[in-house]
Amino acid sequence: MDRSHTFLIVGLGLLGGKYAQVLSGKGYRVTGIDTDESAVAYALEKEYICAGAARDFEALVQSADRVIFAVYPTALLEWVGRYGSLFAPGTLITDVSGVKRGVVGPVQAALPEGVEFIASHPMAGRETSGITHSAEVDFAPANFIITPTEQNTPAAIDWCRDLARALGFARISVLSPAEHDRMIGYVSQLCHAIAVCLMCASDNTELARYTGDSFRDLTRIARINDKMWAELFLWNKDNLIGEIDMFSASLAELRARLADGDRAGLEEMFRLSTKRREAFDKK
Amino acid sequence: MDRSHTFLIVGLGLLGGKYAQVLSGKGYRVTGIDTDESAVAYALEKEYICAGAARDFEALVQSADRVIFAVYPTALLEWVGRYGSLFAPGTLITDVSGVKRGVVGPVQAALPEGVEFIASHPMAGRETSGITHSAEVDFAPANFIITPTEQNTPAAIDWCRDLARALGFARISVLSPAEHDRMIGYVSQLCHAIAVCLMCASDNTELARYTGDSFRDLTRIARINDKMWAELFLWNKDNLIGEIDMFSASLAELRARLADGDRAGLEEMFRLSTKRREAFDKK
Repeated sequence: MDRSHTFLIVGLGLLGGKYAQVLSGKGYRVTGIDTDESAVAYALEKEYICAGAARDFEALVQSADRVIFAVYPTALLEWVGRYGSLFAPGTLITDVSGVKRGVVGPVQAALPEGVEFIASHPMAGRETSGITHSAEVDFAPANFIITPTEQNTPAAIDWCRDLARALGFARISVLSPAEHDRMIGYVSQLCHAIAVCLMCASDNTELARYTGDSFRDLTRIARINDKMWAELFLWNKDNLIGEIDMFSASLAELRARLADGDRAGLEEMFRLSTKRREAFDKK
Repeated sequence: MDRSHTFLIVGLGLLGGKYAQVLSGKGYRVTGIDTDESAVAYALEKEYICAGAARDFEALVQSADRVIFAVYPTALLEWVGRYGSLFAPGTLITDVSGVKRGVVGPVQAALPEGVEFIASHPMAGRETSGITHSAEVDFAPANFIITPTEQNTPAAIDWCRDLARALGFARISVLSPAEHDRMIGYVSQLCHAIAVCLMCASDNTELARYTGDSFRDLTRIARINDKMWAELFLWNKDNLIGEIDMFSASLAELRARLADGDRAGLEEMFRLSTKRREAFDKK
């Protein structure tokens, strides 16, 4: 990527802070804004950004030509509706949102002519949040998904791919917003829903001393940022409900075989799960 | 433990092999039997045991005074019914079974006068099976649960605790068979049922390239020994069905809040799961 550009990070939280840290560390000029003054102060102090503001940020917006939105989807839509006209023509914008349908089209429609939004999703979440934890985020083993629409230019997609490479992601993929949301409903959201429900089902905290790796691995993601995940679930409601229904049907089938004492039927499910799980090891 | 005793391992699989390996390594005299001649040959070749047999093992049984059953619960019950009378008075016996009610009482009842069965469960399973994988088993971070009944003597419980220490387990607990089975239904069996159903629900193996740590952690245990886990599930059917029902009710509640667009209700579940999960970190 061209080092003459100025990156603006909108939202200096866990991921916004990490983007700022990595890009500044690579010699890019990075500025940042956040409604929380202490996040801006932290980013300045750590030299994640060279300039920042919590208000009166119009000049920062106008002087940036590469922008990364690292805020929740609802905040992204609101922000673009309110300040989108400030962007200079030629500005390229991406985001970090974990859901894409319902976000990408409206953002693209709200931006002025000549300003391009190319959506992407860095799959590098953690159980923590906030810029003070940014340094713990590791992009090296993670997936980066670019989700273009018909409105996007090849040049913008290339820039987004270059950005992902500069950030150090392991694998970069291109999916449509719809494909992305279906995928994320299964590999991420359904897993989080299950982990949450394992904890909510009953208060078994007295059993903590007996747990082994299986249980702890399964429930690690039950520590969850409540505001962000409510957003992600609600924006992808249809896909996630579909996944929950398919999973629940499978669990009901296992329960029925168990209740019937159907040993062969249980063994059949175990062999199928073993076979399918092998595909997820080979990568 | 007294090194004048001879340990007999009945069942030279993953765990039986590991018990033999560790005890032989510590200077105990260990013999072993298994219906599979190649497992016996492997144990002899690796010096996990100093004598072994796949048949005509009466002399080995009669000359042992400390016995560990490392076979499935059904096989344990059959074996004791058939050969239990061979044990010499004073013999102490334990097992490795992952379920206890329904096993411990009948085994105790089937043994001759003066032969004591003190049940225990080393919580150190793996996705692999067979003695050729025994060396990979690690007892150091694992729990060891002793499940005495009213038939057991303090001396036998002490011996079982000494055995667990010699094997190197991190934590040793004493629970009744009923408490054990309730605990294992939640911390282990429900987790395995969920992982299996995540794989059986639909064929999403094409999504493997997009998965991150959360998904892989959640489904690691979907690679499962079909025969053993059908046994474990069926022997603990009532507890596991109860756990599945509580979990399913929680998932149905989450689904309902999602379908209703109930943001506050989802956030409430996420805060509860986060709070409860913290208890499982502190250990």
